Amino acid sequence: MSNELFERHKALLDLALAATATRGAFNAWPDNPADYNDVLAAEGRQAFANYCDSYFYLDQPGVGERIGRETSPYGFELGIQYPKTNLASIMSVAQRAGEAWSKVELDTRAGVLLEILHQLNTRSFELAQATMHTTGLPFDLAFTSGGPHAQERGLEALALTYNEMKSIPAESLWERGEGAQAVRIKKTFKVVGRGISLTIGCSTQPNWSAYPGMFASLMAGNALLVKPHAHAVLPLAITVGVMRHVLKDAGFDADLVMLVVDDEVRAITQSIATRPEIKIIDYTGNPDFAAWLLDSAQGKVVHCATAAVNPVVVDGTADLPGLLKHLVHSVARAGGRTCLSPRVIFTASAGVQTPAGGVTTEEFDERLTQAFQRFTNDATAACALMGALPRHDFDARIDGAAMFGEVLVESQPLTDPMHPDGYFRSPLVVRVRPDHADSYMHEWFGPIVFLVECETIADALTRAAALTREKGAIVASLYSLDAGVCAAAEEAFGSTGATLCLNFTGEAYPGSSAAFSDFHLSGMNPSGNSTLTDSAFVAGRFRVVQTKTLL
Amino acid sequence: MSNELFERHKALLDLALAATATRGAFNAWPDNPADYNDVLAAEGRQAFANYCDSYFYLDQPGVGERIGRETSPYGFELGIQYPKTNLASIMSVAQRAGEAWSKVELDTRAGVLLEILHQLNTRSFELAQATMHTTGLPFDLAFTSGGPHAQERGLEALALTYNEMKSIPAESLWERGEGAQAVRIKKTFKVVGRGISLTIGCSTQPNWSAYPGMFASLMAGNALLVKPHAHAVLPLAITVGVMRHVLKDAGFDADLVMLVVDDEVRAITQSIATRPEIKIIDYTGNPDFAAWLLDSAQGKVVHCATAAVNPVVVDGTADLPGLLKHLVHSVARAGGRTCLSPRVIFTASAGVQTPAGGVTTEEFDERLTQAFQRFTNDATAACALMGALPRHDFDARIDGAAMFGEVLVESQPLTDPMHPDGYFRSPLVVRVRPDHADSYMHEWFGPIVFLVECETIADALTRAAALTREKGAIVASLYSLDAGVCAAAEEAFGSTGATLCLNFTGEAYPGSSAAFSDFHLSGMNPSGNSTLTDSAFVAGRFRVVQTKTLL
Repeated sequence: MSNELFERHKALLDLALAATATRGAFNAWPDNPADYNDVLAAEGRQAFANYCDSYFYLDQPGVGERIGRETSPYGFELGIQYPKTNLASIMSVAQRAGEAWSKVELDTRAGVLLEILHQLNTRSFELAQATMHTTGLPFDLAFTSGGPHAQERGLEALALTYNEMKSIPAESLWERGEGAQAVRIKKTFKVVGRGISLTIGCSTQPNWSAYPGMFASLMAGNALLVKPHAHAVLPLAITVGVMRHVLKDAGFDADLVMLVVDDEVRAITQSIATRPEIKIIDYTGNPDFAAWLLDSAQGKVVHCATAAVNPVVVDGTADLPGLLKHLVHSVARAGGRTCLSPRVIFTASAGVQTPAGGVTTEEFDERLTQAFQRFTNDATAACALMGALPRHDFDARIDGAAMFGEVLVESQPLTDPMHPDGYFRSPLVVRVRPDHADSYMHEWFGPIVFLVECETIADALTRAAALTREKGAIVASLYSLDAGVCAAAEEAFGSTGATLCLNFTGEAYPGSSAAFSDFHLSGMNPSGNSTLTDSAFVAGRFRVVQTKTLL
Repeated sequence: MSNELFERHKALLDLALAATATRGAFNAWPDNPADYNDVLAAEGRQAFANYCDSYFYLDQPGVGERIGRETSPYGFELGIQYPKTNLASIMSVAQRAGEAWSKVELDTRAGVLLEILHQLNTRSFELAQATMHTTGLPFDLAFTSGGPHAQERGLEALALTYNEMKSIPAESLWERGEGAQAVRIKKTFKVVGRGISLTIGCSTQPNWSAYPGMFASLMAGNALLVKPHAHAVLPLAITVGVMRHVLKDAGFDADLVMLVVDDEVRAITQSIATRPEIKIIDYTGNPDFAAWLLDSAQGKVVHCATAAVNPVVVDGTADLPGLLKHLVHSVARAGGRTCLSPRVIFTASAGVQTPAGGVTTEEFDERLTQAFQRFTNDATAACALMGALPRHDFDARIDGAAMFGEVLVESQPLTDPMHPDGYFRSPLVVRVRPDHADSYMHEWFGPIVFLVECETIADALTRAAALTREKGAIVASLYSLDAGVCAAAEEAFGSTGATLCLNFTGEAYPGSSAAFSDFHLSGMNPSGNSTLTDSAFVAGRFRVVQTKTLL
């Protein structure tokens, strides 16, 4: 059974490995819902409806009480009750399952994990609904982020881990000297997991953020505990359910992967994270908790992805209307709730250069304002791009940001006829002075962007790079027709570790991070301490033990 | 010049890379002093004599005062005065040098580092003298540990880092869609260093322990500060001198590598380690300081190698005299001052099985005692194998260990006619009850071994594995003719991460860790948090930054 799974999926693994080496474009699965069988969309909606107002089935040990208070930002309670897991009882179970799993042959493990990804892919519509109604993301983004793009990041991490482990030979013969002096030693090398790995999920991209660490840790031979954000449990609960199902089907201990659910009142993350059995932690979320984790980790491997105050620097463009539209879309996309959303737009007092001559900053600001207003005027399209917001989180934040400068574009409540009970707000644009750094050097998560006019473009680059270095950014964007400015930006952002996107317009978004191609995070600034997609991310998840026999 | 260096040494790099992949036997340089040119030995002695009672030349910035109080365990003051470096002035200098070095092409960097290794190798006799007269190691071991074996571990780390960095493509083309919808993005990937790397040296194997981290960090594009142990500065000072010389010769900033010397009174390690510019720390030394480093590191990469209480389990042997001689040599070698020295010998009450029948534990203990006594009786040979000890460190420790049980073999002061002023002591053997775990579950660094008789061999394995798990061990040794016991040991030690050596006698020592072949440390028990020789050790020393240009 198990080797059969590996044979079945081996070609995909090979393609994934080739893609991680060349880092060109590769899609393991279609990311357009239209490319899937028609019936899947309806089945996904039905599956989601069945989850609501029910007990979520998960045959984990130590289940007594139930827990769960998720609310869809589209305006209803999910009413899903998850098993509330007793930590004391699952730790030893996870440990044992991990020890057994660590002894399973690499190809067999890979086969099981590839089958899990395959089965997750067939449930992408269900995962899309789950993601949409926990995060508030619009359907299309919930589909990619909860489905194929997450699965691809999982496959990428699996492939990288597999590759690292395979680079360790199973055995070697060590020979030295001749005749009576000859020494011959047979060495065997085993790659083993480290124990239990903990994934702490986030509320905005629960699957996409979690899958890399989950699949890397499992491939490396660890047991896995998944602790979703209390507001976005369902996508990871479904994932854990699929994992347990496939493991069991393939003859392995399903308790290798367990879900741990908490809520604000009974928060459990700190208790689990400090347990000695936990050897690896993957966390996506706020910087304060990441700092606590790093401080408290004491010898654990901790990978964190946190706040990103991504800058955009506008120097010049060959297509001002295209640029304006693109900026509005970048800010509005997913309601500004991705780790790649732009947060601050820097310009220079000389204005914006175009082939037809300079545009003053006043004119640029005015035209940008108009572009945002046009966008907001089509409320249905705006809601479809932005998604719904969890009201209690975003209301105060948007209104708070508005107090930090001059409001150029007000954030208005919007109504989406498709989701009359959802909470929608249009983007807020605030102009601040460059020396009011406290206002904009901060991640205002949501549909909020700051406009900062600097003296010169060099000054703008300096400030944007300082923002990245001090507060963290994953991506920086530059619009310029001047090769010297482009080179200066490459230099400035290169040293901060933010990915620089040059003159992105049309369908190319700085907010897209493609599996197998983009190194997500550099680990060089406060946005995170490692890249989700390189050998440093996976190599520490397993260990090598050796036995030497004198022959 | 620089590419010429790479071309000159490329074949060696290729051989090293091939060796790390297959992990068989490979020697980059001869490790027998007799295989070197005769004049080198005399030149090495002369060079060492010239260092003594002098100022050590190093043209680093910020040098004012001088510092240094090294004493040869062979009985004289070295009288070498090193530059005492002003931290405030070197940090920014190192930072700048690192930034420039990080931009140098990979092959060029590799060429310079390979040339450094080559030049270090030509100075192996000088490094041997420096190592011998700081650590007290006997000449042959000082030669290998200060010279070729250290150089090979450096080459191994360099090759692994080079390989990891080369696996990142320089650029890729990302394409999606067709016609007007087509998006084409050119991506460039740069691998860059993280900043300043700090190596904290140890007093017993200063070069061997330090070179892996030093060469990995430099290859990865970092600046390097080297803080030797106050008792063993010279081997690393010479190393830093060679590095600076080659860098300068090749046209690079010599301040990429700087030496920082302190002493007990003016200890500086904690001040440097907590500087924010330091991004990577490699430490070999005591577990308490390692724990402090891990606690204080806050986001730095910290690789530690600490105490190892290596167990030996004796169940049976086909060659009892050979086994006894081997055990004595293992304990005595280097005066028991390597991280691979055996610390505790476990037996079972059923005694030791041989093809001729069982040997009672009483008889085994008696014969082992006799073997130690025979060894000690030839004082010259004993001193030549053990080396000299720093008196103030080892006197109290050996006498203290003797109070923890029944002394089977007393440690006697020895006299070496070759080094009449040196301090030498024969090995101490102490028998303790298995339930007096506090006595033997502790690293008694030096020529000290505990004998523990357990009820059964299974009990012995359980206790030895527990020792490894709780207190740390790098290597475990088993002597047994029983395949079942061997399998049980493989299982027991496999889960602790100690390298298991089966039936090592003759010239095969568990205390040998061969570059390119043995994974030194597993990172699975308290003896250290990482392997010095795998991708997890090198991959976190550099980062990937990307620029994306819309085509």
